[in-house]
Amino acid sequence: MNYHVLTLFPEMIEDGMNTSITGRAITKGLLSLHTVNIRDYSVTGNGRIDDYPYGGGAGMVMQAEPVMRAYEDLISRIVSKPRVIYLTPQGQVFRQQMAEEFAKEEDLIFLCGHYEGIDERVLEEIVTDYVSIGDYVLTGGELPAMVMMDAIARMVPGVLSNQESGQTESFQGNLLEYPQYSRPEDWRGKKVPPVLMSGHHGNVDRWRRNQSLLRTLRVRPELLMGAEFDKADRKYLHALLRQETEETVTPEELNFLSKLLAIREKA
Amino acid sequence: MNYHVLTLFPEMIEDGMNTSITGRAITKGLLSLHTVNIRDYSVTGNGRIDDYPYGGGAGMVMQAEPVMRAYEDLISRIVSKPRVIYLTPQGQVFRQQMAEEFAKEEDLIFLCGHYEGIDERVLEEIVTDYVSIGDYVLTGGELPAMVMMDAIARMVPGVLSNQESGQTESFQGNLLEYPQYSRPEDWRGKKVPPVLMSGHHGNVDRWRRNQSLLRTLRVRPELLMGAEFDKADRKYLHALLRQETEETVTPEELNFLSKLLAIREKA
Repeated sequence: MNYHVLTLFPEMIEDGMNTSITGRAITKGLLSLHTVNIRDYSVTGNGRIDDYPYGGGAGMVMQAEPVMRAYEDLISRIVSKPRVIYLTPQGQVFRQQMAEEFAKEEDLIFLCGHYEGIDERVLEEIVTDYVSIGDYVLTGGELPAMVMMDAIARMVPGVLSNQESGQTESFQGNLLEYPQYSRPEDWRGKKVPPVLMSGHHGNVDRWRRNQSLLRTLRVRPELLMGAEFDKADRKYLHALLRQETEETVTPEELNFLSKLLAIREKA
Repeated sequence: MNYHVLTLFPEMIEDGMNTSITGRAITKGLLSLHTVNIRDYSVTGNGRIDDYPYGGGAGMVMQAEPVMRAYEDLISRIVSKPRVIYLTPQGQVFRQQMAEEFAKEEDLIFLCGHYEGIDERVLEEIVTDYVSIGDYVLTGGELPAMVMMDAIARMVPGVLSNQESGQTESFQGNLLEYPQYSRPEDWRGKKVPPVLMSGHHGNVDRWRRNQSLLRTLRVRPELLMGAEFDKADRKYLHALLRQETEETVTPEELNFLSKLLAIREKA
């Protein structure tokens, strides 16, 4: 996977991506990172790349020409014509499935905006994918680009070791992950749940699955609407509903659970 | 606003936050950034802070004691007891409103996990807020912490200049931003929409508002469900529905629009 980033802050991208798992993948040659400073393509020659917006209003707009020249210079050195991802709150919301899809590409170009955005006309010319990492406003496109590059990198074969690949499971079944515990068994008076010490794999798996169901119900109940349940899952959810487990469930959670199970039994 | 970050990669956080608008705010004294390397609190003294998970499974888990010691050392130097935000896919989804709320705090602690997560017992002891920046999996909590710090920093008084503060509008009205244009008027044969050159402020505002409505319908229609419309908005949406505008609207968009307007007229 070759990442190309059009940005005003190349060092920020390079420092961030050279750390931890992505840094190791770059050293191994599984990823490459190439940043292009849009400021080097200033039309006025003094590094200025923004101007006032037509129609008035606060802020400055990044001009079309420097972005276009940076892009043209970049693709003149690439054989294929890669997808160009523009990081913007005005985009489709990034999700794990999208990371998996982008991971199949050989090259990806990320375009990072600043100020009040980039002149619409150059976006129309070069951008193939408008992507938002979430419903919040950031000072620029660099952090969202790094977030996307990190999530996509994890999906590139060989980037994660076998030890690390377990995490890939998150969101795939629409359930949140179960809690984790490590040594010591007794930490400041708090003990590891006995089932995890039992050595009984079936019971461990069941406990973890129940914890995932419970946690999803508590934190992100809407995800359960898209989750698949087997017989044992339904048994646990019914036990929760009848309050036959040790867990405290709030009236709102009971209400949601009762609706969810009613919908599922109809289907 | 004083940010404190418990992390395995302090340089990554420092390099990232010292750039652009947040870097300027740190220089001005409006923000401060203090990183704590969890590895310095290794129990074994050799920098190791992870161990195998009880109950088996892939990956390693960050142990409770090094995280607790790093936290205890940190809060012994702070007068108040700040909120502790743990970055995790198992959290509430971060939104602009949350950034505004966190911006009212004086100190915030961010806890960044790696590997398969952190021993549940220390999370129960110290974490006040479990936050996810979106439904995707990342290699660690550093990038999400930087994303949150950036979004929150924008909401701290004085961090944005007047010129920059326009962007704050995004999401507040549940509409996406309108397109922006800057000089030249004719760029490679593509012209700025004439209304923006008219000098008629009322028409400019109306055009921009219509563009926001149209863009939200195309990219994030579900956001329109929570948006407020005035008389002129409704007039434009009805014109779109009757296909009396110059815009091309797909059958799916028409279908959504017709349902939306029916619901609104009932209310």
